[in-house]
Parts: sequence; C-alpha cells; structure tokens
Amino acid sequence: MANILGKHFSVHIFGQSHAPSIGAVIEGLPAGFKPDWDQVYAFMARRAPGGNALSTSRKETDMPEILSGLNEKGETCGAPLAIRIQNGDHHSADYDQLKVHPRPGHADATAFMKFAGFNDIRGGGQFSGRLTAPLCFAGALALQLLSEKGIQVKAHIAEIAGVKDALLDPVSPDLSAVSASGLAVADQSAGKKMQNAIWEAKEKGDSVGGIIECFATGVPAGLGDPMFDGVENLLARALFGIPGVRGVEFGTGFAAAEMTGSRHNDAYCMKDGMLQTKTNHHGGILGGITTGMPLIVRMAIKPTPSIAMEQKTVDLTTGEETALSISGRHDPCIVPRAVPVMEAAVACVLYELMTK
Amino acid sequence: MANILGKHFSVHIFGQSHAPSIGAVIEGLPAGFKPDWDQVYAFMARRAPGGNALSTSRKETDMPEILSGLNEKGETCGAPLAIRIQNGDHHSADYDQLKVHPRPGHADATAFMKFAGFNDIRGGGQFSGRLTAPLCFAGALALQLLSEKGIQVKAHIAEIAGVKDALLDPVSPDLSAVSASGLAVADQSAGKKMQNAIWEAKEKGDSVGGIIECFATGVPAGLGDPMFDGVENLLARALFGIPGVRGVEFGTGFAAAEMTGSRHNDAYCMKDGMLQTKTNHHGGILGGITTGMPLIVRMAIKPTPSIAMEQKTVDLTTGEETALSISGRHDPCIVPRAVPVMEAAVACVLYELMTK
Amino acid sequence: MANILGKHFSVHIFGQSHAPSIGAVIEGLPAGFKPDWDQVYAFMARRAPGGNALSTSRKETDMPEILSGLNEKGETCGAPLAIRIQNGDHHSADYDQLKVHPRPGHADATAFMKFAGFNDIRGGGQFSGRLTAPLCFAGALALQLLSEKGIQVKAHIAEIAGVKDALLDPVSPDLSAVSASGLAVADQSAGKKMQNAIWEAKEKGDSVGGIIECFATGVPAGLGDPMFDGVENLLARALFGIPGVRGVEFGTGFAAAEMTGSRHNDAYCMKDGMLQTKTNHHGGILGGITTGMPLIVRMAIKPTPSIAMEQKTVDLTTGEETALSISGRHDPCIVPRAVPVMEAAVACVLYELMTK
Amino acid sequence: MANILGKHFSVHIFGQSHAPSIGAVIEGLPAGFKPDWDQVYAFMARRAPGGNALSTSRKETDMPEILSGLNEKGETCGAPLAIRIQNGDHHSADYDQLKVHPRPGHADATAFMKFAGFNDIRGGGQFSGRLTAPLCFAGALALQLLSEKGIQVKAHIAEIAGVKDALLDPVSPDLSAVSASGLAVADQSAGKKMQNAIWEAKEKGDSVGGIIECFATGVPAGLGDPMFDGVENLLARALFGIPGVRGVEFGTGFAAAEMTGSRHNDAYCMKDGMLQTKTNHHGGILGGITTGMPLIVRMAIKPTPSIAMEQKTVDLTTGEETALSISGRHDPCIVPRAVPVMEAAVACVLYELMTK
Repeated sequence: MANILGKHFSVHIFGQSHAPSIGAVIEGLPAGFKPDWDQVYAFMARRAPGGNALSTSRKETDMPEILSGLNEKGETCGAPLAIRIQNGDHHSADYDQLKVHPRPGHADATAFMKFAGFNDIRGGGQFSGRLTAPLCFAGALALQLLSEKGIQVKAHIAEIAGVKDALLDPVSPDLSAVSASGLAVADQSAGKKMQNAIWEAKEKGDSVGGIIECFATGVPAGLGDPMFDGVENLLARALFGIPGVRGVEFGTGFAAAEMTGSRHNDAYCMKDGMLQTKTNHHGGILGGITTGMPLIVRMAIKPTPSIAMEQKTVDLTTGEETALSISGRHDPCIVPRAVPVMEAAVACVLYELMTK
Repeated sequence: MANILGKHFSVHIFGQSHAPSIGAVIEGLPAGFKPDWDQVYAFMARRAPGGNALSTSRKETDMPEILSGLNEKGETCGAPLAIRIQNGDHHSADYDQLKVHPRPGHADATAFMKFAGFNDIRGGGQFSGRLTAPLCFAGALALQLLSEKGIQVKAHIAEIAGVKDALLDPVSPDLSAVSASGLAVADQSAGKKMQNAIWEAKEKGDSVGGIIECFATGVPAGLGDPMFDGVENLLARALFGIPGVRGVEFGTGFAAAEMTGSRHNDAYCMKDGMLQTKTNHHGGILGGITTGMPLIVRMAIKPTPSIAMEQKTVDLTTGEETALSISGRHDPCIVPRAVPVMEAAVACVLYELMTK
Repeated sequence: MANILGKHFSVHIFGQSHAPSIGAVIEGLPAGFKPDWDQVYAFMARRAPGGNALSTSRKETDMPEILSGLNEKGETCGAPLAIRIQNGDHHSADYDQLKVHPRPGHADATAFMKFAGFNDIRGGGQFSGRLTAPLCFAGALALQLLSEKGIQVKAHIAEIAGVKDALLDPVSPDLSAVSASGLAVADQSAGKKMQNAIWEAKEKGDSVGGIIECFATGVPAGLGDPMFDGVENLLARALFGIPGVRGVEFGTGFAAAEMTGSRHNDAYCMKDGMLQTKTNHHGGILGGITTGMPLIVRMAIKPTPSIAMEQKTVDLTTGEETALSISGRHDPCIVPRAVPVMEAAVACVLYELMTK
Repeated sequence: MANILGKHFSVHIFGQSHAPSIGAVIEGLPAGFKPDWDQVYAFMARRAPGGNALSTSRKETDMPEILSGLNEKGETCGAPLAIRIQNGDHHSADYDQLKVHPRPGHADATAFMKFAGFNDIRGGGQFSGRLTAPLCFAGALALQLLSEKGIQVKAHIAEIAGVKDALLDPVSPDLSAVSASGLAVADQSAGKKMQNAIWEAKEKGDSVGGIIECFATGVPAGLGDPMFDGVENLLARALFGIPGVRGVEFGTGFAAAEMTGSRHNDAYCMKDGMLQTKTNHHGGILGGITTGMPLIVRMAIKPTPSIAMEQKTVDLTTGEETALSISGRHDPCIVPRAVPVMEAAVACVLYELMTK
C-alpha cells in the first residue's frame, strides 16, 4: 500500500510522469459534499509550473477529470472519487540516456535495481514530483472540509539557501501575513533575497534547497493515537512521501536537543475557558495527541538534484565512470512549489484524524 | 493499529507503566529461529535503568517471559511470539495528584482529553518510556536476524546539551569506535562533557536533551517502496513512536537545505564491482529506496519533561493556575537509554523490509 | 479499504454504473510483465453482456484504457497499473423513481440510509454488477501469471434453478470438459435445461439463481496463513464482494455437516513423490493452508432481484406501501456472467497468496 | 496480520495449545468500560470442556489473567487490553508420533510444509480449537457493549448429524426459546436426538458435524461497506477462522439458488415507523449493508477429524503408507462448544462495525 495515504480518508495515487495519466482514487469523503471547484483549481495552480516565473517551463494543464464518485447533482455519493490528469507535452527523448547513466541524487539507480531495469525512466517515472499533483487535488478537498470545522492549514517558506523568513508566533501565528502571491513568505525582503539566490543558482547551472514550515490552527485537542499512530508519525509518513524531503520536525524540533527541560516545557494556563500553554515548543502535540495549540511542523528539502553542471556518474553497461550534464527543464529550487504540497499533505492527515 | 509496528515483521506492544505487565506479540519471525537469549538480555539491559549510573533508580528486572511462539525445542514455530514483562516496585502514590495537575511536556493532559479522564495516569500509563522495553526485545531478535545477513545497526549519541560527539565517516563508518560501555560515543572526552552536563542539570532539578545518530551497514540496495512506504517513511513512523522524539532526518538532513545541488548530489562510482557513491549526503536512501550505502538517520530528543524545578500548571478541577514540583525518580536525560531503543526501532524496520 | 482486494497483489476498484468511468488501480504485478492483451479482452468478453444471448441487451464496450503502469515498451514498470472503462449508453431516466421507491432485493434502501440519500442510484451506482468488469481485468492478468506457474483456475455452473451440471472429479478434475462457449457446463444437456429455465423465468418477468463451482489445480502446498488469513477467509472475502452471492463453501462444504469423520477425513497417500489425499472432501485446504490437492470452492447466487413482475415496496416520501414494476434491461439470471467473475476473484486471491 | 480480527475493535490472538499461554491483545474498547466479569467467565465456560458432558475430558481452567488495559479502578483506560490464559494439564506425549504421521483432516501436514517442520505439533499447536478461548473472551466483552446498544446475538444448533432443530422465525426470532443449558436448541426433542447421534459416533470411535445458525437482533440499518468490506465479507473472514468451518451462508443462503426472484425478494413495508421487510430471505443484509432486519448467518462444521477409528496416513520419513489410530481425548462433535465461539465472532464483527 505504498501509494496510499490514510485509512479513513485515503488517497491512492497512481501514474508516472510520462504515462498517459496520473491520478488518484480518494475514499472517505463525506457523502453529500459539493466541492468548490474553483478553489480546488486555484489551489492546484499554486503547485503547477508557470504560476511561478522561476519554475520549469514545461507546460502542464493539470486539470483533473472526474472519473467517478459524484452523483447526478455533482455531490459526493459515497463511492470512491477517482480522478485522472492527462499527461502531455513530453520530451521523453531527454531521458533516453538516463537508464544507463543514472543521475546523482535521483531515484534512477534505485528504481533500476528495485524493478530489475523495467522501471519507467521517462521524466522520473513514478518518482517524479508531478505525482504530487493528485495529492494536491485531495488536499484541496481536505482543506475545504477542514475549513468548515474551523481548521486552517498554512505553510510558509522558512528558509531558502540560508535566507530565513520572519518567525511566526508559535502561540498565535498570523497566517494572513504569508504572501498569497509570489513566494509564500511573511517577510517580502527575505523573499526577494530568496529569489535572487534561486536565480544565481540557476545561472550557475546549480540548485538550492530550503525549509518549509506549516501551521494548523483550530485543531481540536485529542486527535492522534499513542505510539506509532501519533500525529507526528502520520504526518512524517505523509511528508517523507514528498520528493526531496530529508527531515521532519515538530515544535522546536532539533533545537529542543539543546534546550533544558525548564525552558522547553510549556507551562499550562487557562485561556478562553480552555486548557492552553503559554509557549508552544511542543508544536501542538504531546504524546502523539493534539493539545489544541497550533500544530507546527517543518520539513527540509534538498537542492534539486537535476542540475546543468557536469556531474560524475557511471555507465551501467560498461561499469566505467562518465560525465553527465542534465539539460531538460528543471526547477533550480523546488521549495516554492512544495509549499502547497506540504499544505495538502498536512490537510489530508488532519482530515484523516478528524474522520476516524 | 496504533500499537503495531510493521506488517510483515510486526511488533504489537501492550501495557502501561503500572499495569500488571507490559509485553508484545511479535509476528513474522522465520520458523526455526533459535534466538541467542544472552544477547537478547544483554541488549535489553542497555535500555534498563541501573545499567547507567545516571538513570532512574527505579529497579526494573525487565526480564521477558515467553508466553508463546516456540516449539518444544525452543525454536520459533510460526505462531506469534508473545512475551510479557511483569511490572513491580511501583510508587503509584507519586502520581496521585497528576490527573488534576497535568505535568507540562507530558501526555497527561492529552491522554485525559482523549480518553475522557479514564486514562491510566500511573507512571505515565501507556505513554511511559517503559513501553520501549518490549520494542527492545523485538529489536534484539531483529538485530540477530539482520546480523546473519551481514547487516549491522549501531547508534551513537551525536549530541547532548550542545556537546557533540566526533563525526563518523558517512561513507565507511567505523562503528566499533562507539563505546560499548558508559555513554555510546566515539569521542570519550565528549562523553565526559555530556555526563557533566547531565549531572549539572540534575543538580539544578532540570534536564537536557540531545541527538542520536544511527547507522546501518550492509543494507542491500533496493529495499523500500516509492511514495509513502519509502525507507524514510517507515523509519520515521517507528522513531516518532519513541517518547520524546521531536525530529527525524536522513543523510545530511536539515543541513541539506543550505547546500547547493552540486555539493549535495553524491557522484556515482564503481567500487568492489558495485555501484556506490563517493560521498553519502543521501544517507543510503534515494526515492525511498536503499542504495546500498550506509543508512544514516538522526533523531532529536527533547529534555526530559519530568523535572524537580517548580513549574506552572492548571488544576483541572478548579481551572486555576497552580505550581507543580515533580519528585519521583526521573532521568535528567533520556538520551543514553534511548540509544538501544533507536537501534531496536531501526532494526525492526529493516527486518520488515528484508522479509516483505 | 472496502473497495480494495488484496494487500500484496491488490485491486482497488472505483466507479458507478452511470459515472463517467469505472476502473481499477492494480498493484503488486511483477515488473517486466507484458500481458497478452488479446487474452485479457477475451476473458473480459465472457463477462460482458452480448456474449450471451440471455443477458441484458445494454451495450457495453468494456474496453479498458490503460492510464498508467507500463513503461515505454508496454511492460509493467513497478508503478500502479491504473485502468478506466468509460461508461456510456445510459438510460438513467429508468432509475428516476428508484430513490423513493426502493427495489426489493437491491441495495437501494441500504445505500440511501448509509449515504444519507446522496447515493448514486443511477444503474445501481457503486453496487452495480458492472463494477465486476475491472475485477475481471485484474483477474485476467492474475490468470496469466498463475498459468506461468502451472496453476489453472476454472469454474463451471454447478446449478441453475435446481438443474445440476455433471459432477467433476474432486481429486483429478477434467477442467477441459467445461464448455468454453455458451453456458459453462460439463453436461450440455443440463446446460440446455438451464437455458430453458432462464427463458421461462424471463417470460414470466421473473428470475432464477444458481451455484457456481470453481477449481484451482496446480496450487502448491503451503499457501495461506492460520486463523483469519487462511485461504478460505481470503476467498470468502473476495467472493462475497460479488453482487448476489449468499453463500460460500469449500470442499464438501455444508454437506460435511451430515458426514461422519471416518468418511469426511481424506486419507493420505504418496503419489508422484508427493503427499496427496485419496479423496478430496477438504477441497485442497486444511487449517487454512493449501494441501496441493485441487482447490474447490462454491458460491450460491440469488435470483436477480430486478424483475418485471409487480412487487411491493414503500414510497419513502409518504411512508405508504406502493407497487413497483421494474422495466429496464436486466438479466433473468446473472449466474452465466458470474462464472468469469468468480474465476477472476479466485485468481486474484491465489496470486496474492503466491506473491506474499 | 493473520491472527488479528478487526481494525477498529481488534482482537490479536496468540498462543499454541501446549505453549505456556494463549491469549489476546484487544484494542478499540471504549475508555471507561467496566466489564461484568461474572458474565465474561460464564460466557467462556460455555465454550470450555466440562460444561458439557459430551466434550473432551481435558481439564481447562481457562481463566483469563488481565495483563494490561485497565486503570486503577478496573476500567478500560484506552491502552490495549491484554490477557493470557495459562495452559496446563498437557499430555504432550500423545502427540509424539504426529509430526511424521500426519492426521487426516488436520493441519498437521500443511503446518509442517508451511513452517518447514518447525511447527508446534503438540495439541495441534496454533491450529488447536483452544485458540478460540481468547476469541470468546473478546466476544464476551463485545456482547456486553452491544447489549448496551440493544443488540442481541444468539446462536443455536441448526443441525447435528442430520438431526435438525426447529426453525426460528427469520422476521421476529424468539431467541429466548434457545436452551441456555445443555445443547443450544429450541426443540428439546431434537436436542436429545442430536446427543444420541453424538454418543453413537463416540462409541464407534467416529465423529459427526453440524450447522450452527446465529441471529443478531436490534442491529441498526446502515452498517457495513460496499464490495469487500460488506457485513458478509467481514463475518465470513471471522467465521472461517474457527477450526472446522467449511461453509458460511446468509439469509436463505444456498437455498436461494433454487428460488425465483419473485419469491426471494423481500417486499418492503413500514412497521413501527421504520422501513422493514415482510419476509427476511436477505438475512438482514443487502449490498453488504445492514437493513435493520434480524441478521441471519449459518456456518457448517465438519465432523471432528480426530477419531479413534484406524485411518490411513503416510510416514513422512519413509514415504510409506501406514495406519493411525488417535487415542487422546477428543470431542466426537465440536458443534456444541462452537456455539458460543460463533456468537463471539459475530459479536466482535458487529462491534467493529458499530465503532468504525
């Protein structure tokens, strides 16, 4: 079930970058739900290339076609909601040499070994970032359903190439401060520096990485289960499914390792008749279970492995080392497009937790 | 299935800190396996208190009793291997006030909300670190089975309270450099500084956190599945099941966010007739699938929330803020005892991947 | 995961009778498999209406369109194989009254209650027998893969409307005796009587049921797991997923209830160097595990609930009893078309067992 | 997960007949539930030998010991409820020859093949009917929880050795007519004939089988999911986990194969303000979903394979045919003790459906 996220609200993703289609089968939507399709398309557009001048020039329409799941009135009917997004505008020839010259930092070699050479190398096959499009579709639905329950999920770029965005208040984050257009940052001057860093990398034929931080507010206390199905476990499983993610942390995360208990512990208080904490180092989760405080999760994204600069690889047919220069069209930084993907993944997990 | 780790090699953990027993039901062991019990007990002793002068003085025998799963010759027979470890030496009175005075940084309040006040508060109930003992039992078995296949799993304390251990070579780590007694560090002088930091925290009635890094060598290429069942996803699910873990990262992890692609990408080369990488920023995993290079994973552990220093909490019966001072016996730093727990979790996941 | 059959070889079915499409996402096919598409289509044609003069005159093309899962050479590549079959030729108007006048013997009323009235009533929605088409697609693939391993799966109509087919030898069944065209029976004269019984029912505006018996030969010993994942458990889960199935039995099945142990027990013998049984009352399964003898399973199918004769139902808007006469086009007996569906379900389960 | 029944209310069974213990880990009980232990023990006593003069004389105390899952007040606390039942009074010597002389009709040979000869043959190992004791424990809890919701689950012996009990009204069954002591039949004279048939079989060193029919009343409409997680699918998975079961049918079951649609369809009517059916051939399930009518399920149990009469088997060491006579203590008919087991299995599934 490697391609399925969730059990109660589940998203089964299929497709390869250059297969006829990618898509998803979504289960666990409440019957009678009539999605706001404009919102869905607008959300998906944030991930699609072209919405951002810095991203790949490959044109993707990314418009999902509903295959099943709606009744005659366009409402969810209890049957699985299946969609497909047609692929097109392929330059498969770009990838002809890749099967024997695996690209460093990519899944080319591991996919080759796992699938005995039958893997679909075109466009990265099933390992392509394009597979996050159906996840965004599912996430857009989950976001609408969560919103009805007063839950907001919003991510911002915390860092690109060492340039850091402003900190958002962990106890009472102002999510509206995050820019809705351009880079999703709260500090526009930091955003400009990030853009410059991305342009510089692109000019050198190189790439850069970054960190995205996601907040969820309005989350009720008591979600999540002990041990291996805590909120962290479920979110980590989802987020490590996004290509390029190398680390996931909650609350103060790795920084907690250098704090003392007296500082890291969040003192309890009563506020608005509810048990709350004065600080939020715990990121809204204790013992795997939500506390009702804002949920805070960060993920680190590596620099795009596809770079124009020459790299060393091995010719698998001869066993000899050789050089590789990746032409094609590739984002010098996938962080901006990964922002809605992270929101989608977090929303899917939270809706799963709300429905079980 | 919150208390079950794994599907093919699965560990179902039960118990509370002060229930009659804790234990586990383990499935997926190969039939005909005769464990080296001395090794199992020695491994479990590394987690038990008392093995380390710095840890809680609560006496735990932690000797597992086999309930089922062996044939008349003491070999695994295909049936679930069930064990229990009896609890004892309780001071449940210590915890009498906790239900109404939730401890900051603990699961007291979230468990109360989730289980409508029926949660077992004694000793932390099912959220106690004691529940990692059966995980260590299962991990000890997995380690033996992995060792037969040439796979070694070894963790060291990378950092406590800001004091860092020596770096181990990511390409060819010398795991024997990690001390087998005392703190699991490669640099003994760093170990002494860590111990001092722990003692200092204890004297202040405070606590400290840290980072543990785990290596697995000899892992064959091709393990793991795409998307949500990649090696990172499975390991993260397991590791976030360990109490106090706030972050998990692979390879260069969060540091990758500040690297360029040309530096982060690991160039391929041929070595000993096998495809390898010259560096190991990827930590042995690409596209969720093992490359055959050493697997590298790190987890951040927060400072022990149970501290003697006075803290602010709320009396749930009156809604008024009140002060709390936790007496009892608590580790000022759980990092040392978490080292074998991390090895156990990693071993269980790797054996799962080997058997599916 | 109600719409997913299998864990290692899994078939996720989606669609409604009058949605744009029905389809499936199939996982667990070996990489590098190049299906014989003519065989697939021929198998699916056996289920499709029109292949049989007695079945519904609704025209279904039922030609699956591959959405993903193949590489550039048309081989499976390790990614999920997704297909869709477009729906068309709808007479949705036939069903307009059904939401308020639930049809006896159908899922109309239960779907209405489960999905709060948002269920898709058109053509039976997700409860339509049409959803067995993607199962047949998956089964056709499984049959080819099983055939490569020497496993044959073949069903025959054991009974329709009380007319019984010839018995096949449980120890060494001659599967080639089952007619490949027309009704799948070994005794053609029985087949003619069955056809007459179906025609008679049709003329009266009534319908009839029957029993299908499926054999699998060449199944290796040792498949299946104890307790709840035995071969019977898995097959029963699959077969009760076929609309209209009311009972499932293995070997002598319900007849075993009237046998003595001395008669029912199958004595062991050696044959061709293998442990076999002299009789096969156990139907190839003992303790949930295959013995290597032919697997024998039977399922009972109720008479088609859609009949032209007037029936009593209730107007859900008024609560008053009313009469209902179902026009539309409906099979007076679904048993003939269910034969390949049963083979598909059995093949999917057996391939699941072969791959785990 | 072969030994786990259920996902939301799950029962994980472990043990072998002659291991130190058998037991279960039960999850999904509501927090704050205080079981009526006397009822639990009384229910388990119905399955235990000795409660019935006709059953095996092996003495089992079968008293479960609670290992975890209760808080200090004896209420469920949200943690897994684990129990064990100690084994004892073994005559393992009885089974010494069995590994090389597999008993016809038993899992001896299949377990040997599956587990490469390491299977625990003593007392049937994990295939022993004794493993139904922990299922009965879980079922006793589920029955109490269902009873609080107005759901009653009651089985009776429909047939032993061809002797049939009285029919219970499918629309409005009088479950109190089933005898609470001795054989669970509604017709005492039929019960006497059944007892005689069992005695006769025992005297001959033979055994007999039968059919048990279970009703559940008060089941709300709308439980169960389409396709592979319908009520039939879940119940069949559970019931085929009971040793000796060869067939499972719902409502009119196999008899539906010989009925016409006009007779088999249950006309709708309004009664007590609820949608009901005038007859109940559907057994309370349509499209996999409960209708609110009494649920009716039957299972066929084969004659006990352990018989004193001489049987043919093969010596696995020499490959030669040999004779086998099973001494030991064995029920000449397991049907009477299987009655509470069936009730337990049905109750577990229904409670699963109520909690998801």
